[in-house]
Amino acid sequence: MITTTDKTALLNDRFLRALARQPVDRTPLWLMRQAGRYLPEYRATRAKAGDFLTLCKTPELAAEVTLQPIDRYRFDAAILFSDILTIPDAMGLGLHFTEGEGPAFRNPVRTADDIAQLPIPDPEVELRYVIDGVRACKSALANRVPLIGFAGSPWTLATYMIEGAGSKDFRHSKALRYGAPALLKALLDKLTESVALYLAAQAAAGADALMIFDTWGGALDQDGYRYFSLASMGRLVDRLAVLAPGVPVILFSKGCGQFLLELSGTGCAGLGVDWTTNIGDARHMVGGSVALQGNFDPAALFAPPATIRELVAKTLDDYGAAPGHIFNLGHGILTNTPVENVAALVEAVHELSPAYHAAAADEAA
Amino acid sequence: MITTTDKTALLNDRFLRALARQPVDRTPLWLMRQAGRYLPEYRATRAKAGDFLTLCKTPELAAEVTLQPIDRYRFDAAILFSDILTIPDAMGLGLHFTEGEGPAFRNPVRTADDIAQLPIPDPEVELRYVIDGVRACKSALANRVPLIGFAGSPWTLATYMIEGAGSKDFRHSKALRYGAPALLKALLDKLTESVALYLAAQAAAGADALMIFDTWGGALDQDGYRYFSLASMGRLVDRLAVLAPGVPVILFSKGCGQFLLELSGTGCAGLGVDWTTNIGDARHMVGGSVALQGNFDPAALFAPPATIRELVAKTLDDYGAAPGHIFNLGHGILTNTPVENVAALVEAVHELSPAYHAAAADEAA
Repeated sequence: MITTTDKTALLNDRFLRALARQPVDRTPLWLMRQAGRYLPEYRATRAKAGDFLTLCKTPELAAEVTLQPIDRYRFDAAILFSDILTIPDAMGLGLHFTEGEGPAFRNPVRTADDIAQLPIPDPEVELRYVIDGVRACKSALANRVPLIGFAGSPWTLATYMIEGAGSKDFRHSKALRYGAPALLKALLDKLTESVALYLAAQAAAGADALMIFDTWGGALDQDGYRYFSLASMGRLVDRLAVLAPGVPVILFSKGCGQFLLELSGTGCAGLGVDWTTNIGDARHMVGGSVALQGNFDPAALFAPPATIRELVAKTLDDYGAAPGHIFNLGHGILTNTPVENVAALVEAVHELSPAYHAAAADEAA
Repeated sequence: MITTTDKTALLNDRFLRALARQPVDRTPLWLMRQAGRYLPEYRATRAKAGDFLTLCKTPELAAEVTLQPIDRYRFDAAILFSDILTIPDAMGLGLHFTEGEGPAFRNPVRTADDIAQLPIPDPEVELRYVIDGVRACKSALANRVPLIGFAGSPWTLATYMIEGAGSKDFRHSKALRYGAPALLKALLDKLTESVALYLAAQAAAGADALMIFDTWGGALDQDGYRYFSLASMGRLVDRLAVLAPGVPVILFSKGCGQFLLELSGTGCAGLGVDWTTNIGDARHMVGGSVALQGNFDPAALFAPPATIRELVAKTLDDYGAAPGHIFNLGHGILTNTPVENVAALVEAVHELSPAYHAAAADEAA
């Protein structure tokens, strides 16, 4: 079993090179939620597992679905199949999934006592199945491509823990954000440390890069985003620099294009960009200081293949001839996305992107 | 029955003065969806009506709920109680509401034939109940405050018509946006003309200002927003300048803070601002060329009254001592918002805002 990573052994290191803003032969590509319900082979494994949580909690099955999109599409990175709510579950909140309704917690967290009593999980104990999943993925990947470990951002995890389920308006979380900011801060501090230990354990088990999903950062007001979400992600990056030195971190705050420059100052290696921000504008905003990952509209995968090819060309052109672009969607791939349309996207990136890197190499020469 | 408006007869014209960026004694205030389920008197009228659509389609009942928040909170403007989906309903799509699931259409629109066959409704015929509702509101208001008429933006209406219901990902609308842009454009053109005639009829019946809700503009990519949503709203403002000259128009694209400057160039009188953009930043972005309406986080109304007062102070301070601010939420008021918290908001705006206008008057002197 592989438990540490020899980066030089990777057969395809485009993703890590782009993340370090080094030259590559073509733009590396992976898709958020690439192991998912749009794939028939995923649905088969899911049926075998019985339910979503069992699939997450069985390392061999998690590794099986993690590798499916690598086998089918030759993506340049694998991302551990898991869920962002594993940490609150390990804290004892009682995670469960209701078909069609999404995740819910039996014990939401709203009072000072609730927060004070939350444990910081030991990843090798309460989250052992995730860390074993990382090991199983690394072993199965056999150095074909890098493995990305991930977690939810402290703020995004806090919203689920406070609301007790997904939410459209975050009324309970916002009641704390506005009415009891010190309480929310205490919860975020606990989550920041929990996420740091969790991601460091994933890195120790072999994850080559770490990604933090701040799905609900965009629901906050500007001050709230800076103080509660961005600041806790900044502390997280600082902690990871100590706990998992040298492992690059990608931050993704959906709906937060206005904060890209501030996010780039956290010490992260890369930033996710959603489709509402032009990726060329994003590149100018961060001035080449970090890599950018994105930003194809997931719903554009419902357009015909010829259109998808044109849109890939536009995304590549918007980013331009410079290192540091990782092709991805602007959010997770949607269920019912036609598999042949994903193939068209992959083919277009493979065929159209080398020209931009040849140009970059020429400019550098 | 009053069918035309004598603006000079209005007993409270703060809202219209602020919209024209003229001096006022205090910041005018109204709330999006102020006539709604958070009010016990609304729930009583709704129960009397039986269901939501009957309430919308009965002018006397619509006027009754329109005036309820004016009576309770002395808001500075009334907004017609109605729904943005009246136009698609009048086009024959078969609007219905399912409890808990929101609006849906029996006949969604997706093909060139579907779009070609859509009629442009005559507001005084197929939407007569709305125009009668405007007349009933004007009569009941008896010039206490101005009445705002409204409609959904062409893009936002198109998303419901194409999806056949509310959507999280807009996959069918985006399939047209990317794969068949000429078809989407044809639909938007028809909607733009329908909305223009509809809003002009509301103005002719007495509406003192017109607001366009682009609830789903923020779901689009940047090019898509400019070409499909912003451009159709721009044409709409141009048409209204002909069909309803002198009646000010407010545009509100939720999640589109990055486009405020471009929106300000459409010829509208004011722009809605959601809570994710700082309203002081917004003011600097538009350089005083339009009025700004917003941008209190609706979820902040779940914080304690003392916090609400502090947040009102911050919003007023962010906007600063200048004319052209209409205090509002950054989106519709949430169900279950405590009525006493709304009272705290109203009291805070009434008590804290005059200082900013005295300062503005001093600066002007």
